[in-house]
Amino acid sequence: MIRTYAFARTLYCRSVTSSQIWKAPKGVWRVPCCPGLYQNVNCQLDSGKSFATEIPICKERDAHHTTLNMCPHGVQVRADENTRMLHVALEDGNVASFPYIWLRDSCLCSECHSPSSRSRSLLMAELNVDVKASAFQVDPTTGDIEVTWDDGHVSTYQLDWLKKHNFSAEARRCRLSDTYLKGGKKFWGAELNGNIPRFDFKEVISDNEQMYRFLDTIRVTGIAVVHNAPQDTGVVVTLGNAIAFIRPCNYGDTFQVYTRPDPKNAAYTAGALEMHTDLSYFDYMPGVQFLHCIKQSNMGGTNQFADGYYAAENIRKSNLAAFNLLAETVVDFHDMGHDQHVGDYLQQSRGTTIQLDGDGNYNHVRISNHGRCDFLNTDKEHAREWYKAYILLYHSFYAKENMVEYKMEPGEIICFDNVRVLHGRSAIFANFGGEGSLPERHLEGAYVDWDAWNSKLRSLREELGR
Amino acid sequence: MIRTYAFARTLYCRSVTSSQIWKAPKGVWRVPCCPGLYQNVNCQLDSGKSFATEIPICKERDAHHTTLNMCPHGVQVRADENTRMLHVALEDGNVASFPYIWLRDSCLCSECHSPSSRSRSLLMAELNVDVKASAFQVDPTTGDIEVTWDDGHVSTYQLDWLKKHNFSAEARRCRLSDTYLKGGKKFWGAELNGNIPRFDFKEVISDNEQMYRFLDTIRVTGIAVVHNAPQDTGVVVTLGNAIAFIRPCNYGDTFQVYTRPDPKNAAYTAGALEMHTDLSYFDYMPGVQFLHCIKQSNMGGTNQFADGYYAAENIRKSNLAAFNLLAETVVDFHDMGHDQHVGDYLQQSRGTTIQLDGDGNYNHVRISNHGRCDFLNTDKEHAREWYKAYILLYHSFYAKENMVEYKMEPGEIICFDNVRVLHGRSAIFANFGGEGSLPERHLEGAYVDWDAWNSKLRSLREELGR
Repeated sequence: MIRTYAFARTLYCRSVTSSQIWKAPKGVWRVPCCPGLYQNVNCQLDSGKSFATEIPICKERDAHHTTLNMCPHGVQVRADENTRMLHVALEDGNVASFPYIWLRDSCLCSECHSPSSRSRSLLMAELNVDVKASAFQVDPTTGDIEVTWDDGHVSTYQLDWLKKHNFSAEARRCRLSDTYLKGGKKFWGAELNGNIPRFDFKEVISDNEQMYRFLDTIRVTGIAVVHNAPQDTGVVVTLGNAIAFIRPCNYGDTFQVYTRPDPKNAAYTAGALEMHTDLSYFDYMPGVQFLHCIKQSNMGGTNQFADGYYAAENIRKSNLAAFNLLAETVVDFHDMGHDQHVGDYLQQSRGTTIQLDGDGNYNHVRISNHGRCDFLNTDKEHAREWYKAYILLYHSFYAKENMVEYKMEPGEIICFDNVRVLHGRSAIFANFGGEGSLPERHLEGAYVDWDAWNSKLRSLREELGR
Repeated sequence: MIRTYAFARTLYCRSVTSSQIWKAPKGVWRVPCCPGLYQNVNCQLDSGKSFATEIPICKERDAHHTTLNMCPHGVQVRADENTRMLHVALEDGNVASFPYIWLRDSCLCSECHSPSSRSRSLLMAELNVDVKASAFQVDPTTGDIEVTWDDGHVSTYQLDWLKKHNFSAEARRCRLSDTYLKGGKKFWGAELNGNIPRFDFKEVISDNEQMYRFLDTIRVTGIAVVHNAPQDTGVVVTLGNAIAFIRPCNYGDTFQVYTRPDPKNAAYTAGALEMHTDLSYFDYMPGVQFLHCIKQSNMGGTNQFADGYYAAENIRKSNLAAFNLLAETVVDFHDMGHDQHVGDYLQQSRGTTIQLDGDGNYNHVRISNHGRCDFLNTDKEHAREWYKAYILLYHSFYAKENMVEYKMEPGEIICFDNVRVLHGRSAIFANFGGEGSLPERHLEGAYVDWDAWNSKLRSLREELGR
């Protein structure tokens, strides 16, 4: 058994059984050991800081040895040929372990990684799954670790970079939540009536801070009003391009919502429009929807919104069987017609009403009563129970405690997470007027995908140091 | 026990136990029964055609009765209050059963369904999950079934429509395969060298038959060359718009592949490009990729292709453990940089290398060594096994029996299923020439999503009667 302690950048080791003490030179210390046999001990640095680490248990001094590297950061590194990993004992007492193959694959030298395209240039054909570290050393000033691989290649890993790439379950959870912007979603009900977050159009498109706040509000709350926008068509494209790029669909880059005499889509009628997610008949539903009010009807045409995740969460709590049916039964959607942009179309997609990720978080809801197919691909015995759950969910959208209503003013753009926030509208009391007259209510809509939205959000977060 | 037979549109029933015979009036026949007790019997129509059906077993004549409707089509309908379904005995002897709630939900009358937008206008708020059929009748000429619901609403269902909406497991399987164009995929290996399907550019964009064949070839085989295209930029947009619409990304609507001195993407180097799927760092990877050769290099720049599904299928057969690792381990991808179209971007997505649908069919492969993140979100103990499987897959792409090589001529557009067919290229021996000189090799690329592609394919299939 060995006790180690460090003083003035020198490591002292003391064998508990023999009481022998030895000293290693600065920079690199070699400690006798039997590979594979370790014991947790406390080390103390010259700074006075102590940390827990693993030290090999010795049977015979110098008979076997491994390399134990320490640096002023209090970082201790051990190469482990059994597990083919590099174990790095960090200042906080935790040991982070990194598989050799992953370290070799992730080498950031100019040969293996292209800095200008910020991507891996090491080819898979060159990667040997049995790669071993033949030597390594720790920079005593920075704590960076230089590994020489058995193919002769040398890789250097910065300590901070290694910490960021920790394989621990906790680190992985945090990294995923952070990278994929999963955290902090705020569910809402009727309390958002009169309290929908508001942003100024010019500020959003010209000021990074406002843009960041707007993007993150849609991510977290799923709905916001951008006001003071010009009352012209094309404004949604300006907003979309300020973020990234518009997501086109079979109706074009933008779509005009007004009452038409021969509507190809339920949105173009004057009728009430039941709450839904747009383009549920696309495998990839559009992420964020903009509806820009250019003209508003005097009567009717109030928009209705409900937080699909909140509704789903309430059902999860109150009726798990219904929730599971909605999360497991695949429902089909379609849209068929003709549009000037694409000619004839027959869009078709399917998915569960509630879609969860592997951790049980909400990925999206896919709900459109007018786009839902007339065939139902379930067992006939299963159908009625599914309808019960589906109707339960629908009723919850319209429950007084859940629904948010908002009648837009011209110059306002309501923006919402289309795969989370259901939207609908009350009937429009339309006056078509004489021939050639413009419709009373005119909204222009457009979409920006979550892929593009989150890319901008991540870039701004980095730029603004959030 | 009852025997039934029909003559001159009259149904005769004979009780086997009592030998009693009775006759029902034309159009609608009422047969005494005890609900819930049925027996298979053979019926014979006046046409001489016989069919198997279910007839209630009687205990006492007229004590209980149900309604048995027959028409010259040989269709027999029974309303079943126990299961809340309508049972329709078809000419082929099979019984198709339709839940009341689904029938009511799928009513195609002008009140419940909008013919111009071809979508449901019945609101969920109006749908009662306990709806019952209070009466029904079968049109003796057409076989159409008219149901009067207990809320007074009347729905008519055409017999052919009902057959198409059959809930049987077999019907559902066929319908899904047909609707989602799943069937008939042809996997390939090196035998496609010199045999990549070819289409003429002008024919594809002007002739529906050629367009249909082209679209379906990409669906089935996943790769084709469109030749005789103009050697100008913008041609990929012409092709994309002839199908539906271009899918933009952070590089714009189209992207220019030529060797640049300061490449932002690995494709813009002169180096060999390992086979990959494009934009693996988007949740929704682009569906079909076009690469249009405008100028070709004299040396190098040959494209390489491999069928990802074929490679995966071979691993499924030879090494199921490796296959499962590739189908279950989620891998992260990213792309970070600056582009004139979107400014700074930080795209990020994740998915399994092989993605299957619920039936074990291939949905996509997601593979990009240069876009793969340097963090790996697996247990450290699990990492090396995953790398083994991943390297195995990579090697199989390059195996002589699997890889297809093709060096494009100017005016050719290679088109391939980006979520199935891996593409790469050999190194380009680029001559940058003097300052301001054009690069030797210039490809223009663009994407069309599967959502849009399949929409066009379905429309043309309908138009061409396929």
